Amino acid sequence: MRQSQLFTKTKKEFPKDEEGKSARFLIRAGFIEKLMPGVYSFLPLGLKVLQNIENIVREEMNNAGGQEILMPALQPKENWQQTGRWQTFDALYKLKSREGKELTLGPTHEEIVVPLAKKFINSYKDLPVYLYQIQTKFRDELRPRSGLLRGREFLMKDFYSFHESKADLEKFYEKMKKVYLKTFNRLGLKSIVVEASGGTFSKYSHEFQVLNPNGEDEIIYCNCGFAQNREICNLKENDKCPKCKKKTIKISRAIEVGNIFQLRTKYSEPFNLKFKTKKGNEILVEMGCYGIGLTRSMAAIVETSSDEKGIIWPESVAPFKVHLLALGNQKKEAEKLYQILKKSGQKAKIEVLFDDRQISAGEKFADADLIGIPYRVVVSDRTVKNKKFELKKRNEEKVKLVTQKELLKIILKMS
Amino acid sequence: MRQSQLFTKTKKEFPKDEEGKSARFLIRAGFIEKLMPGVYSFLPLGLKVLQNIENIVREEMNNAGGQEILMPALQPKENWQQTGRWQTFDALYKLKSREGKELTLGPTHEEIVVPLAKKFINSYKDLPVYLYQIQTKFRDELRPRSGLLRGREFLMKDFYSFHESKADLEKFYEKMKKVYLKTFNRLGLKSIVVEASGGTFSKYSHEFQVLNPNGEDEIIYCNCGFAQNREICNLKENDKCPKCKKKTIKISRAIEVGNIFQLRTKYSEPFNLKFKTKKGNEILVEMGCYGIGLTRSMAAIVETSSDEKGIIWPESVAPFKVHLLALGNQKKEAEKLYQILKKSGQKAKIEVLFDDRQISAGEKFADADLIGIPYRVVVSDRTVKNKKFELKKRNEEKVKLVTQKELLKIILKMS
Repeated sequence: MRQSQLFTKTKKEFPKDEEGKSARFLIRAGFIEKLMPGVYSFLPLGLKVLQNIENIVREEMNNAGGQEILMPALQPKENWQQTGRWQTFDALYKLKSREGKELTLGPTHEEIVVPLAKKFINSYKDLPVYLYQIQTKFRDELRPRSGLLRGREFLMKDFYSFHESKADLEKFYEKMKKVYLKTFNRLGLKSIVVEASGGTFSKYSHEFQVLNPNGEDEIIYCNCGFAQNREICNLKENDKCPKCKKKTIKISRAIEVGNIFQLRTKYSEPFNLKFKTKKGNEILVEMGCYGIGLTRSMAAIVETSSDEKGIIWPESVAPFKVHLLALGNQKKEAEKLYQILKKSGQKAKIEVLFDDRQISAGEKFADADLIGIPYRVVVSDRTVKNKKFELKKRNEEKVKLVTQKELLKIILKMS
Repeated sequence: MRQSQLFTKTKKEFPKDEEGKSARFLIRAGFIEKLMPGVYSFLPLGLKVLQNIENIVREEMNNAGGQEILMPALQPKENWQQTGRWQTFDALYKLKSREGKELTLGPTHEEIVVPLAKKFINSYKDLPVYLYQIQTKFRDELRPRSGLLRGREFLMKDFYSFHESKADLEKFYEKMKKVYLKTFNRLGLKSIVVEASGGTFSKYSHEFQVLNPNGEDEIIYCNCGFAQNREICNLKENDKCPKCKKKTIKISRAIEVGNIFQLRTKYSEPFNLKFKTKKGNEILVEMGCYGIGLTRSMAAIVETSSDEKGIIWPESVAPFKVHLLALGNQKKEAEKLYQILKKSGQKAKIEVLFDDRQISAGEKFADADLIGIPYRVVVSDRTVKNKKFELKKRNEEKVKLVTQKELLKIILKMS
């Protein structure tokens, strides 16, 4: 895409009403724009990142056996009364239709997916089954925080598993831990599995936390694998790790990007979701649920991958893979290279942002650093004279001089 | 995908609380499920169709120069007061946050996209620009109708164009008429362009209507190209066409799947969206808007493409391209073919639904007709003996006997 055609421009200043690093960079670079606290629009660059995140998550959920569905945001009060959460879930947006029907906007979908599953699950032959959706959630947060880190409207992947036994649920739950670590890894997020409070039916739930000073949570962990959320852990600095009993525990702030729960029969019971066993008994279905915050993951990537100049997108989620800069009088030569890159990259889906604007080299470099596309290619008077292009990775200082052939080889390797 | 693993099953009966043909078929075949009137869940088969529709629409909007964004559903009262529509838009859902902030759920996005555009449009150099989104809309309809035909929560593509002059708007508006006809054509919908009431600034708006007895609108039209919505047309049966003055006009019910408006400065004015001309004057931006109902299009496809046995999906949007049926004792032979089809179809994205269930041939045929996948391949004792497979198109009676090689050739041609 030509940058001269791009709807957004970068801003000279950081936004005055945002404190978090990710929100400040994402707004200044033109990825998102605030409509009101906790509610943001995704602009062309930002939506591309979000769609890349979405596609990776979708692929991993499909690989795990998930069947994608899409449930409504508008939900009837009755479903939430059935579980008691109409009263207890603080952050429910509540509204009334013109006809006086009381509704809420789904902050999560147990109250919808269980009655839905009940329509199709009858026998042990229908189990296990795994359903998920990638869907917009609404939570009336009192304190929305740091842009996309805690929003009132946000994109989430919620996955629900249905099992005939506790043992089957536990086996799948362990599998999902691995699926989650792989998914976050593909997103460029180093996550650790952290024990958190479990609720009625299981000792622990598990959170996927990315260590970061701007995170809302406090995590106590050890290199041996021990990790607990502060909410269930009383250890203090310099305490020994209770698991390996050798090392000293570490304490850090962290961003929760995912969580998984063994719900057991917490929701199948109020909706009486039962199945017929091989022996002909009717028993309650065992359930697990597994969430990933997609918009929050986007913020977590920026929180953990940036420098003082701007964002450093991992290749897997970058809005474009290559940022091509035409400098000096070399717009024509750059245009030639743009056409070649577009054509060669088409099959491998390597997209190029071509800075064809009539502005100074300094401004182009500053914008490129701010936007954070992984590979930067420069066509200038000097590179044309040398018959080589300048290639620089966003996260490295080193500038390589490469021929067109070498350039194509490097870029096509990416896909 | 193996049908034995599919979350949904077809239902023996039509739903009792739906009158429209599309809703009845879509629910019975397991594509959608009603949560409450006007609000539906999309099940695995239904979401696949919706995503196929989405991808075609996205491709055409990108080709037209559109830049995809994603704006919030939650919107502040202030934006709607600015245009006066907080009071006049009947179907607005209204709600209050815990902090007492008054909000609505976007039924359309002029009130959001104009202030957003204002942040990036300053000069004639920034125009024209085209923004669109594929996003969930909410309307508090008093009478939701016929399943997905008129929903309270539905998926829409809304496209907004920004121009420096009326002439430029008009040129683009004409271009979008062609883009729309092509888009609907790709979706398997024969749409006609119909004049409708224009509002404050232009004589007409234009609707894209699909002739169908279950449509909400009444259309008066002639083969010469004349077509008007009943709301602006007083012609009666047997009247002469006012355009060609030769033929007699026809009257039909129709489903509105898209509409386009020349908004002119209706929304740029309340938000004072201006730009600096070449001469340095500041003038209001001219705007157009262009909508397509994605979920409604899905219903329109079913309304216009089905028979007494079930749905007949066009290849472009079908949830799977091929339905493979294993009959009698030939599950093993069918499994072989399934693996071959999966492998050969991978690149071309030809997906196969494999009916590997232990049920009668009659039930399998009935389900296949109901679900409506374009190509049906049968592996039975007879076909194995003949070393040929039975191939039947959903919309044809004729059954072809084909070798594996011939089958692959036909199927791969589809993509």
